[in-house]
Amino acid sequence: MIIIAEKINGSIPSVAKAISEKDEAFLRDLAVRQSEAGATYIDVCSSVAPEVEFDTMRWMLDLVQDATDTPISVDSPNAECLVQLLPYVKKPGLVNSVSGEGNKIDLVFPAIADTKWEVMALLSDDTGIPKSAADRLRVFDNIMAAAEKYGIAPNRIHIDPLVEMLCTSEDGIAMVIEVITSIKKRYPTIHISGAVSNISFNLPARKLVNIGFVVLAMNAGMDSAIFDPLDKQLLGVIYATEALLGMDDFCMEYITAFREERIAAVNKKK
Amino acid sequence: MIIIAEKINGSIPSVAKAISEKDEAFLRDLAVRQSEAGATYIDVCSSVAPEVEFDTMRWMLDLVQDATDTPISVDSPNAECLVQLLPYVKKPGLVNSVSGEGNKIDLVFPAIADTKWEVMALLSDDTGIPKSAADRLRVFDNIMAAAEKYGIAPNRIHIDPLVEMLCTSEDGIAMVIEVITSIKKRYPTIHISGAVSNISFNLPARKLVNIGFVVLAMNAGMDSAIFDPLDKQLLGVIYATEALLGMDDFCMEYITAFREERIAAVNKKK
Repeated sequence: MIIIAEKINGSIPSVAKAISEKDEAFLRDLAVRQSEAGATYIDVCSSVAPEVEFDTMRWMLDLVQDATDTPISVDSPNAECLVQLLPYVKKPGLVNSVSGEGNKIDLVFPAIADTKWEVMALLSDDTGIPKSAADRLRVFDNIMAAAEKYGIAPNRIHIDPLVEMLCTSEDGIAMVIEVITSIKKRYPTIHISGAVSNISFNLPARKLVNIGFVVLAMNAGMDSAIFDPLDKQLLGVIYATEALLGMDDFCMEYITAFREERIAAVNKKK
Repeated sequence: MIIIAEKINGSIPSVAKAISEKDEAFLRDLAVRQSEAGATYIDVCSSVAPEVEFDTMRWMLDLVQDATDTPISVDSPNAECLVQLLPYVKKPGLVNSVSGEGNKIDLVFPAIADTKWEVMALLSDDTGIPKSAADRLRVFDNIMAAAEKYGIAPNRIHIDPLVEMLCTSEDGIAMVIEVITSIKKRYPTIHISGAVSNISFNLPARKLVNIGFVVLAMNAGMDSAIFDPLDKQLLGVIYATEALLGMDDFCMEYITAFREERIAAVNKKK
């Protein structure tokens, strides 16, 4: 599983406070702990006002890259800002994100065309988040046409099918599973990703729903996810699921993660 | 999910002690708490020596049936003993279990033929537990031929495909999933069951593996399981998975179970 570690995000109150107070130690600590937990990418998202976003992101990127060698997921809703930030990232990471919306793809894809950068692509467009699987797959087709044009191979693309909250659903996650299955069938090397906790919005005991979701999504082909790698239980279920799906012979990786205390049956206070 | 509550089993040391000391209060309490947690069946298994099994089981059945109205899963490896015990069970429950081994089916099926009793059938035979999906399905075919002969409808049969421990597996649970999928396709109304915790034998943090397994098995068609319903987290993931699989519109059952404190994100000390 490609782990996109989610904790350095200005939409989280404690992180917003650290950003506004320029509390470097707080953010460094999050970067180091998430790296030690096994993060593939450290997501860095400022969630500040557009006029200060570039400078805030530069400051955050500098200190996170100083604290850890783990590649960065540069996270902004502003594609222009993302492109401008790329030169300040020491090694290729993940651009988070583009979608079928506006000119995002046309800004980001040429900028990463001849690089090793990977990219997260959301299946939404100017009409919003399509309701049907067929319409989401149409957005997907447009993204892949652009990727081909710029020579971005499928294995550099992470598709976020955009999981919506379960509490308003009448058929569970059937539609999203259909989208994942269809994409994986056509592009076996593409990555399927997404923010795990979106599924449980507005429900109690959210962790239970997040866990069930991640197992079902992995079964359909999800191999990349945005979540908190310090959640030893969620990470543990992911390791267990890899073993159950036959991706971890004799559970060696599961057992190693347990011995290294990166996974556990119960989360202790962090 | 059909919940077969596993805690009244003489193979658990505290229960063995209660049985040997004739501690009725201990067993009654387990029966009541498992019923309140939502058990469909209370499994009753003495795990005592064959010469005292019938009397021990009768004593246990009497006190459990006095403590709760929840139907009983009468559990013994001895098919003759199972049949002899049926008259002492007040209302039809689950016979746990038969298999392709010896004359178990020929003893049990006629005894429940014209009743409302359900039956757990394991996919093993006199050769042991078959290694391949094809061989387990052959055992299944024999069981179903006998069921048809005695007029036992598929919806009264719970098939335990016999999950083996993950730690010795090279392809995860692929074979068992194949067996489940194949059976469900041929008999949509049959129940697929099994003891959830067998999968994690010899592994650390077993709960993580149990959770991943139950989600994947439910996705394939498991709708019955032997586990501890007082484990609010495992039960919670089961409720969450039903919602994710589109079996719980707007998560109403999930939310109700949470409000009734039958499920929770974290297990507190029982």
